[in-house]
Amino acid sequence: MDKRERVTVLGLGRMGAALAGALLAAGHPTTVWNRSAAKAGDLVARGAVLAGTAAEAVRASEVVVVCVTDYDVAGDLLGPLAGELAGRALINLTSGSPEQARRSADWAAEHGIDYLDGTIMAVPQGIGQPGSVLLLSGSAEVHSGRKALIELWGDGDYLGADAGLSALYDLALLGVMWSTIASFLHGAALLGTEDVTAQQFLPKVERWLGAVASFLPGIAAQADSGDYATDVSGLDINVAGLDLLARVSRAQGIGTDVPAALHELYARRLAQGSANDGLASLIDTIRRG
Amino acid sequence: MDKRERVTVLGLGRMGAALAGALLAAGHPTTVWNRSAAKAGDLVARGAVLAGTAAEAVRASEVVVVCVTDYDVAGDLLGPLAGELAGRALINLTSGSPEQARRSADWAAEHGIDYLDGTIMAVPQGIGQPGSVLLLSGSAEVHSGRKALIELWGDGDYLGADAGLSALYDLALLGVMWSTIASFLHGAALLGTEDVTAQQFLPKVERWLGAVASFLPGIAAQADSGDYATDVSGLDINVAGLDLLARVSRAQGIGTDVPAALHELYARRLAQGSANDGLASLIDTIRRG
Ligand SMILES: NC(=O)c1ccc[n+]([C@@H]2O[C@H](COP(=O)([O-])OP(=O)(O)OC[C@H]3O[C@@H](n4cnc5c(N)ncnc54)[C@H](OP(=O)(O)O)[C@@H]3O)[C@@H](O)[C@H]2O)c1
Ligand SMILES: NC(=O)c1ccc[n+]([C@@H]2O[C@H](COP(=O)([O-])OP(=O)(O)OC[C@H]3O[C@@H](n4cnc5c(N)ncnc54)[C@H](OP(=O)(O)O)[C@@H]3O)[C@@H](O)[C@H]2O)c1
Repeated sequence: MDKRERVTVLGLGRMGAALAGALLAAGHPTTVWNRSAAKAGDLVARGAVLAGTAAEAVRASEVVVVCVTDYDVAGDLLGPLAGELAGRALINLTSGSPEQARRSADWAAEHGIDYLDGTIMAVPQGIGQPGSVLLLSGSAEVHSGRKALIELWGDGDYLGADAGLSALYDLALLGVMWSTIASFLHGAALLGTEDVTAQQFLPKVERWLGAVASFLPGIAAQADSGDYATDVSGLDINVAGLDLLARVSRAQGIGTDVPAALHELYARRLAQGSANDGLASLIDTIRRG
Repeated sequence: MDKRERVTVLGLGRMGAALAGALLAAGHPTTVWNRSAAKAGDLVARGAVLAGTAAEAVRASEVVVVCVTDYDVAGDLLGPLAGELAGRALINLTSGSPEQARRSADWAAEHGIDYLDGTIMAVPQGIGQPGSVLLLSGSAEVHSGRKALIELWGDGDYLGADAGLSALYDLALLGVMWSTIASFLHGAALLGTEDVTAQQFLPKVERWLGAVASFLPGIAAQADSGDYATDVSGLDINVAGLDLLARVSRAQGIGTDVPAALHELYARRLAQGSANDGLASLIDTIRRG
């Protein structure tokens, strides 16, 4: 084995190209393949070898990384390559559901492929930058054997042998991102009605997110214990606040999707619980479905 | 005037009691009043003077702080005290709508009361702790004259002479909190179906919120410019992810309120915009109402 291991990357979309770029920057002999070969141009200029077929790309390296749109695409791509992949390490960084990741791991096990599933908690521009994280699950051997490789992209966080875990955490965390971004944009739209820009709102939100993060340990402890009695802030005052946010949003002429949905959920919990329950009690209502 | 100015606090709920406690700790002669006098016990033991009536409490100090449930309560309480309040500084730290804050400021102006409106971006336990912030708007004189007093509770962030501004920012920021907490609890409920606790999820979320915060400057710049073309992540892949989160949540037997509402909003924007638009484009759909 060379000092720098050969690596193959299948899929050169925004994320796949960033992964391959980080490998090249670290001096790994890198073979790439993409359905649309044109996207490889920049990487080839930086030293990547463009394979003519995906099978050829797989044969070039002991470790194969795949990062495409979803598991259906990954499955169609990898299915015919089982023979070539046998005995190699396959790191699948495509996002999807836990069930899809587990099916993918089962398929790999059937074909003697060492399989590590992963999800990337970063944008392509964040690959290799501080703060970027990869959630990993599946083969502990692939993880421990390729730790240094993974660290080129971000901090590797190995969650366990169940290949579905990284997808489960990924969805849970992305839910926080989609929700936080939507509410940031809702707030920006609300302030925009009074000529405050999103960039003026930004530093207030950045500071406030630090405070919100500091509320989470208490909320997590209550969510786990089931003791929701609060000395912080009752559900009632928060339901009233959400109702006010929806009403003020409407009065200012903007949409109410986010606050209205949240109000519905918080108010449902208030109706189910006791008056002194805090925000953590919401988990009961979510669990009930 | 004493070295430590006399201060009156009307309303000794969770927050009012915390405000009064910080004044006492800093050595301010503090007069308090609450509808239910019993809540003053602890503060009186620490040196506060309990007034028999709200009017008596107002007469005790040049600066009067009010912090009750909402503006209706504050209005009913303060209305009959206009005469006593004339010439004094009134700091209203009750949460509400911008319109309510402006009406309150107009009423104060009519009666010769120096009025500063404010909202507290902290929990009662956070009063006087690092990271706590008070958003303030209205009288610049009251703000600059009582800066040191306000700093006993948190960092004072003066937003301008329009008394409605602090309430507008407050609602926008609380929206981010309600949304982030609901999605944290949704994620915890989802992971809970596979025996991961909220406290195990917590450190992943804390780390991830730092990453999400790092996405916001780019999103804010795009929201302001109206140029939504992305080299980060298209709306399409995010709509697919939200759909997956809702489907996986349903399959695991938990509720789908939060992801379903977000999916509806993101998908509506995707249908309105171009395929290469990023998440910032959502603001257009929210603005349209
Ligand atoms: N972008 C992000 O911010 C981000 C962050 C974390 C995780 N991810 C995950 O990373 C994965 C890739 O995302 P991305 O941003 O790179 O997406 P992208 O820019 O849209 O690229 C999609 C990739 O999938 C390939 N592909 C799609 N359909 C195909 C098919 N039928 N056959 C063969 N190849 C096909 C594309 O090939 P062509 O070039 O030929 O179309 C391209 O290589 C996704 O699972 C995404 O969820 C992305
Ligand atoms: N708690 C938080 O985390 C938090 C954070 C930021 C901002 N705030 C804001 O701070 C304000 C107070 O919140 P809080 O947490 O202190 O609420 P709380 O614990 O429920 O206390 C409510 C206060 O309002 C008084 N009140 C209610 N109805 C009244 C009436 N009809 N006449 C006279 N007094 C009445 C209560 O008096 P009694 O004791 O006699 O009932 C009590 O002093 C709210 O606007 C809230 O939004 C709270």
